[in-house]
Amino acid sequence: MTPAPTMGEFAFIDALRTLPLHPGARGLADDAAVVEIGGESLVITHDSMAEGVHFLPGADMADVAWKLVASNLSDLAAKGAEPVGVLLGHVLGSDDARFLEGLDEVLSHYNVPVLGGDTIAAAGPRTLGLTAIGRATHRPVPSRAGAQAGDALFVTGEIGAAMLGFEALRDGSGADSSAYRRPMARLAEGIALAPQVTAMMDVSDGLLLDALRLAEASKVTLSVETALVPFDVPADRRRDALRWGDDYELLFTLPAGIEPAIPATRIGNVDARKKAALLLDAVPMPGPEGLGYRHGNNK
Amino acid sequence: MTPAPTMGEFAFIDALRTLPLHPGARGLADDAAVVEIGGESLVITHDSMAEGVHFLPGADMADVAWKLVASNLSDLAAKGAEPVGVLLGHVLGSDDARFLEGLDEVLSHYNVPVLGGDTIAAAGPRTLGLTAIGRATHRPVPSRAGAQAGDALFVTGEIGAAMLGFEALRDGSGADSSAYRRPMARLAEGIALAPQVTAMMDVSDGLLLDALRLAEASKVTLSVETALVPFDVPADRRRDALRWGDDYELLFTLPAGIEPAIPATRIGNVDARKKAALLLDAVPMPGPEGLGYRHGNNK
Repeated sequence: MTPAPTMGEFAFIDALRTLPLHPGARGLADDAAVVEIGGESLVITHDSMAEGVHFLPGADMADVAWKLVASNLSDLAAKGAEPVGVLLGHVLGSDDARFLEGLDEVLSHYNVPVLGGDTIAAAGPRTLGLTAIGRATHRPVPSRAGAQAGDALFVTGEIGAAMLGFEALRDGSGADSSAYRRPMARLAEGIALAPQVTAMMDVSDGLLLDALRLAEASKVTLSVETALVPFDVPADRRRDALRWGDDYELLFTLPAGIEPAIPATRIGNVDARKKAALLLDAVPMPGPEGLGYRHGNNK
Repeated sequence: MTPAPTMGEFAFIDALRTLPLHPGARGLADDAAVVEIGGESLVITHDSMAEGVHFLPGADMADVAWKLVASNLSDLAAKGAEPVGVLLGHVLGSDDARFLEGLDEVLSHYNVPVLGGDTIAAAGPRTLGLTAIGRATHRPVPSRAGAQAGDALFVTGEIGAAMLGFEALRDGSGADSSAYRRPMARLAEGIALAPQVTAMMDVSDGLLLDALRLAEASKVTLSVETALVPFDVPADRRRDALRWGDDYELLFTLPAGIEPAIPATRIGNVDARKKAALLLDAVPMPGPEGLGYRHGNNK
């Protein structure tokens, strides 16, 4: 029996922040690290997926490979970076042939090569890791911290399809689950938006939770209007969809009067910081609890 | 019950090689990837450590953190790179406070900052990953592939202390186990050697196995003489020490007549490729089996 962790994810990340941090780590409070090297800005991110937590035993490992890569590329998209390559931290399993098929599909789709990694044998549920390296296409590289009072808040695509996809898969309903199994990283959108945005991040843990993080990083208050959010779910599921993760859309702010370079929906406003960092339909949201996933990305 | 893997580590890595590889991946047959960016060469490596495989349940997690970082920095050392930062793929455990202490110690020792990573909760034995990023100090960046007939073969430090340290720890003998628990990455040595060497790698999986890999990558035959190897073990353990990993010394080749810039021991010669890639005391070694660890780094 494995003893329970003594620290939660956020306590651990807070402790990490007391170690020497690279300036490009952005205080472990952004989607990716940004390293200036050779006159360019390199963008680096690492995300893991654990069996039993981020995917279920028996999941199609081709889908797991797709999501492992796409979720990391989504962090590059949030920086307006173009991918250079990935390093895979792989634990061998009974279904590696399917994993390799999915890996080939996602890398071919995004035209991203393998740079390296490590393959090991280990017992029990697997933890798979991926490091994605990208090259910034615009500097300064967008961060979560640049939103200004008076800006408008936008999101790409639609919100909620990943939630419905998860439920379809869980319930075996036969409905389309591809939005959950095979999310798309908004790389082209991120590159188009990078020169325009004052702040940008990807929506991985839920629109409200991620909006709160952007507000806190920027030291502003974000107001989100439910009626403006482009949902892909029935009306009675909108409340849940605001709190569900895995959409991998881009959330960003633009100065007043600037239209986004790619299709996106205005969902709210940026105001000077009030007591609450996030308002939903003018109601202050108390804190992160209940707003969405809290995976604990220490990035 | 987790089904057994259907592919071994080397079959998986061979399959990975059929996916699109970055030219800097060096065919997944080197210690690290090398990416040209701007006017610099970035060196990137990722290694994992699994509980029950690379460390035992109950191990001091400060030692595990040290080794996780040092083993990755050793890959940078083999490229003559200076570290830029690390990204940690962490799985929470009951002993994270000790892990953080060891992480602080090793990062402070090498003056390497945290760039980012990911922290997750997961059940069962943990797999911890680390990505280390470095900047090459000399170009071309040393590889395993450049040894030439007529070169001499060298190794830094001594061979075998990690084996004795592992045994001391395993047997509770009270003898010094630090070489096993807290290996040193030869960063300064790698930087000093990079302009001189024709080929270089770190000794992580055993002197003989790693020498075989260097020979195969360089398409030469290496001859190692046991009597020349600088052992740190009793005479009756030399045979084992040649096949044990975890020393993290540097193995490298220099043109005839060139003295290494740092202390190192000549242990053999490089000849044009014969039938066997590796000779030990003039006896051909048949293949990798029985020569050392085969962890399956896909780098």
